[in-house]
Parts: sequence; structure tokens; C-alpha cells
Amino acid sequence: MNRHTRFALAFAALAAATAGTAIAQVKPEAEIRYRQSVMNVIGRAMGPMGAMAQGKAPFNAAVVQKNSALVDTLIQLPFGSFGPGTDKGAPTKASEKIWKEEAKFKAAAEASQKAVAKLAAEAKSGDEAKFKAAFGEVGKTCKACHDDYQLKEARN
Amino acid sequence: MNRHTRFALAFAALAAATAGTAIAQVKPEAEIRYRQSVMNVIGRAMGPMGAMAQGKAPFNAAVVQKNSALVDTLIQLPFGSFGPGTDKGAPTKASEKIWKEEAKFKAAAEASQKAVAKLAAEAKSGDEAKFKAAFGEVGKTCKACHDDYQLKEARN
Repeated sequence: MNRHTRFALAFAALAAATAGTAIAQVKPEAEIRYRQSVMNVIGRAMGPMGAMAQGKAPFNAAVVQKNSALVDTLIQLPFGSFGPGTDKGAPTKASEKIWKEEAKFKAAAEASQKAVAKLAAEAKSGDEAKFKAAFGEVGKTCKACHDDYQLKEARN
Repeated sequence: MNRHTRFALAFAALAAATAGTAIAQVKPEAEIRYRQSVMNVIGRAMGPMGAMAQGKAPFNAAVVQKNSALVDTLIQLPFGSFGPGTDKGAPTKASEKIWKEEAKFKAAAEASQKAVAKLAAEAKSGDEAKFKAAFGEVGKTCKACHDDYQLKEARN
């Protein structure tokens, strides 16, 4: 077992402990599909909140509470699936910079998690202005991470 | 606007209300991708619980609580995305029977939702025997629905 493999297994064990999953081994295509799936479900939940934040849909406190809680749960899931060896293996928009700037990527992910947690907390107030402010911060962290680490076109 | 379109829009509005989303129009490929994404994330959360239920991994009450709560949230999401017109448009394992047996499919989906809700509730006890019994029921409802409505191979 070489050093890279040991690191990959240690990372998988850590990710498993974090996510509450039992990953026997890293399967790049499964990890890529999983993180894409989570992001897809997050995107669907973000849509209506984005429309409200932009004034394109009326503010709906119940939807904001439900969707922000869902995003808060889901945003915990994908970042354990960017481990070593998952930079390729299936079409992905993940920039190879992710695996070269691990600390910076981790910080960007954590900034998003923190902003979403605040949104979910603020949503409980049912206050539209608080929602818009917190959602704006979430949007910034999403955009920052996507600008830096999401390619425009999928690569293999 | 013909009758089919009116029904599709009404279904989309209902799905939007249920899921807390604002779907402007039904886009089959997006709906197919969304329901597949949700099922993928559910599958990842089910894995470790399945291993515990089969005695292949030691019972871990914290993981069971976390993962069953996640599945309980997620199992609310995909069934609003099997609306009229979403039977094709992208590769899918969804059997065309889904759109021919709507009431039966709905009942199968609801049976799964009910079994998962019970699992999430039982998980709070931290009792392994209760977990195994409730997980077994979840497995049965997943299998029943997949046996009836999931094709072995994706079709276009």
C-alpha cells in the first residue's frame, strides 16, 4: 500500500465518519455522481428562494423554512466526496484546482455551510428582510466556490 | 391549451406546493435528473444501515438516527417529479407502468414514506432490534416499488 493509497483510505474513513456512511473503498464515478446528485437537489431547493430574494416570487416564510432546512442538511454531504482519486472517472465540472488547493477549497465549502446554517436559523423568524440578507450571503458563498472550482463545461 | 397541458400544469403546481418549489413548467429531463439525484442520495444513506441490518457492520445508533432522518426528509422529494410528460426525455429506469397505474404507484410511494417515517421514529430509541424490524419494513417497500416500477436497464 503506497502513501497515496493510505491517504485515500484515511480520507475515506474520515468522510465515512463525517457523513455517517461506510465506504469500503473510494469509487471515483460513484463519488462524482453522489456529489452531483446532492448539488442537484440543493439547486432545486434554492430555486424558489432565489426567486423570492430577487422579488420574482412573493415571500413565503413556510417555503423558506422548509427549503433552507433541507439545504442546511444537504450542504453537509457533498464535500466528503471530493477525496483523493475522485478528480476524474466520470464527466465532472469539478476543477482540478480542488485537489491542488485543498485547504482553500475546504475553507470555501465551510463558508457555504456556515452561511446556509445562518439562513436556516434566520428563516425561523419568518422575517423577509432577514431572509433576503442571509440568502444574499449564501449566494455569495455559492458563487465564490463555483467561480473558483466549477468549470463551465464538464470534463472527463 | 389542451387538456393534457392543463393537467400537466395543474400537476406541476401541486408538485410545487408539495415540494415547496416553484416550477414554471415541467422539463422532463430536469425532473428525471432530479428524481434520480434524490434516489442516489437516499441510496448512499441507506447503505450503512443495510450493512448493519444484515450484520455486516456493527450497530451504530448515531449513524442510524442521522441517516434515517435524512432518508425521511429525502423520501418526500422524488415522487412529485413523476408527473405527466416526465416518462421520457432522458435515460431513465422508470417503467412506463408508473404513468399507467398512477394510483398504485402513489400507494407504493406512500407505503415507503410511511415505513421510513417509522424507521426514523424508531431510530430515536437507539434499540437495535427495533431498528432491524423497522429497516426490514423499509426494505420491503423499496423492493416492492422497484420490482414493479424500476426497469433493470435505463431506457430513453
